[in-house]
Amino acid sequence: MGVVVNLEGGKRENASIEALIGLTRADMGRVNELILSKAGSDVEMIPEVANHLISSGGKRLRPMLTLAAAQMFGYQGDGHVKLATSVEFMHTATLLHDDVVDESDLRRGKRTARMIWGNQASVLVGDFLLGQAFRMMVEVGSLDALDILSTAASIIAEGEVMQLGVAKNLETTEDDYLAVIKAKTAALFSAAAEVGPIVAGASKTDRAALRSYGVNLGLAFQLIDDALDYGGDSKNLGKNVGDDFREGKVTLPVILSYRRGSAEEREFWKAAIENDHTDDESLDRARGLMTKHGAIGDTIGRARHFGEIARDALAPLKQTPQKQAMLDVIDFCISRVS
Amino acid sequence: MGVVVNLEGGKRENASIEALIGLTRADMGRVNELILSKAGSDVEMIPEVANHLISSGGKRLRPMLTLAAAQMFGYQGDGHVKLATSVEFMHTATLLHDDVVDESDLRRGKRTARMIWGNQASVLVGDFLLGQAFRMMVEVGSLDALDILSTAASIIAEGEVMQLGVAKNLETTEDDYLAVIKAKTAALFSAAAEVGPIVAGASKTDRAALRSYGVNLGLAFQLIDDALDYGGDSKNLGKNVGDDFREGKVTLPVILSYRRGSAEEREFWKAAIENDHTDDESLDRARGLMTKHGAIGDTIGRARHFGEIARDALAPLKQTPQKQAMLDVIDFCISRVS
Repeated sequence: MGVVVNLEGGKRENASIEALIGLTRADMGRVNELILSKAGSDVEMIPEVANHLISSGGKRLRPMLTLAAAQMFGYQGDGHVKLATSVEFMHTATLLHDDVVDESDLRRGKRTARMIWGNQASVLVGDFLLGQAFRMMVEVGSLDALDILSTAASIIAEGEVMQLGVAKNLETTEDDYLAVIKAKTAALFSAAAEVGPIVAGASKTDRAALRSYGVNLGLAFQLIDDALDYGGDSKNLGKNVGDDFREGKVTLPVILSYRRGSAEEREFWKAAIENDHTDDESLDRARGLMTKHGAIGDTIGRARHFGEIARDALAPLKQTPQKQAMLDVIDFCISRVS
Repeated sequence: MGVVVNLEGGKRENASIEALIGLTRADMGRVNELILSKAGSDVEMIPEVANHLISSGGKRLRPMLTLAAAQMFGYQGDGHVKLATSVEFMHTATLLHDDVVDESDLRRGKRTARMIWGNQASVLVGDFLLGQAFRMMVEVGSLDALDILSTAASIIAEGEVMQLGVAKNLETTEDDYLAVIKAKTAALFSAAAEVGPIVAGASKTDRAALRSYGVNLGLAFQLIDDALDYGGDSKNLGKNVGDDFREGKVTLPVILSYRRGSAEEREFWKAAIENDHTDDESLDRARGLMTKHGAIGDTIGRARHFGEIARDALAPLKQTPQKQAMLDVIDFCISRVS
């Protein structure tokens, strides 16, 4: 879309997650070992399905956040590695169930587990990974961390059910949509960030700072994802432009375009989203209408708004390499659309 | 089948769960309130789906076991109510996911949630209930109880995946099958019984006794269920004779009949189980072959074997009304086929 991201005011150019990757490299090595070991089972299909998804090339942003957030408060034990692995398993379980719920054929350009092993295995291996995630949390022994992560598990499922309700519903308001992505996406970012200070025994204030950072980063992340689907460079995302459109997903760029559109334009959106008229010509028209109404730019603007809140959430904390790396993540998420 | 159950040696005639129901009545009132409150959500579909299944008339045997097992050791708090509710939610979540995995249309004579609200809602509301179950466990604050129940959650899912592997596979051995039902069914009975002494602060020996009682009761329960499907009075079970057969399930009566059968009989079983020749005439033949080979009687014999182990597991414990009620449950489970 040629959207230029303005990295003003002390923010780094060339925002990247390299600093985060560097700081968490050693710990992530242990997370990856734990993933392989805890996804193991004598029941052959379980590691097959789990490893298919686990090895499919996600960035592992969520567990890195947990690790960095624990390091930031001087944590020395190994509980953060288990919690980070739990977070990644919760995420993986959600993806397995999502693919069944959405009837998706592809994820990150690879066939989904349900296409290879069936819906049955996807549901059940998701359940297994969730069980394993809770077992690891129990091993860490922090009731506060268990509270945060089990609450997130409920909220994520609630968010997914809410999403069923807004699916193909063009009357969804921006507020409705934000409530969905807050539950569905941001809740896990928030929990991933908050269990870092928890395991490190940091203060309530520090916990609140990381929680606020996480939820707002999650919102920004999801909104940029939504924008990318209509205008980004597909190499950045591992999915093709227009995937959301072809699935009839009502995301913020669609909501804004629909609400700002003429009666005739709304008919177009109804035909597209409600009646699956989503061929390439329709996608082109959709992108044209989004440009006309500034819907992509404003979606990015909303993302930047949440990014700013995430930034201010960390502002009172002592300057550490971890803090800087987590600030870089905000810019990285937003600069994906540049 | 006219199978006469021999209640010898100090066991009660007219075995029933009335004593268990009586002892847990007050606590179960609180469990039922908690079920309604924790299945609540602002997301409308969640309580609808959850209450459909929750109100569909199960006996709630598992939560009653948790309550009685806590009472048995003099527990005075309210943690057992939360743990019992968690156990019931775990069970409900499993049923919701099972119905999706098995593509079932009916459960206990009612349409399944997936037939009314779709597979999507069944998967996600199951996830929500599982999250809520963990939140309640965390509220209780016992890491030992969390350990037992989260481990059970993993094992149950593993058992379900194992079951996919043995589905329609007539070469399944009795050992393979026992491993499946131990994971799929008995693990939750075992956990339900063990968290009672845990929350009551009982000894390791007492925990082990209740754990052993639970796992063996669960095995007996499942095997009797398998036998009932081919010969019981359908009023006892809320399902029709032949349901397992029509779904091509390989249960112990089938395994025994197949292994003991002639080459020609094995062809019949292959046609029935592998190729869905499961009309009423085939069901009659299946039942005839089971009688010929003593497969139902021997399945009940195996159940009685596990029932005896469950009985001996409780033997060293002080005689209390709760202990007697739990012994009655063993006889009740087995006498369902009489």
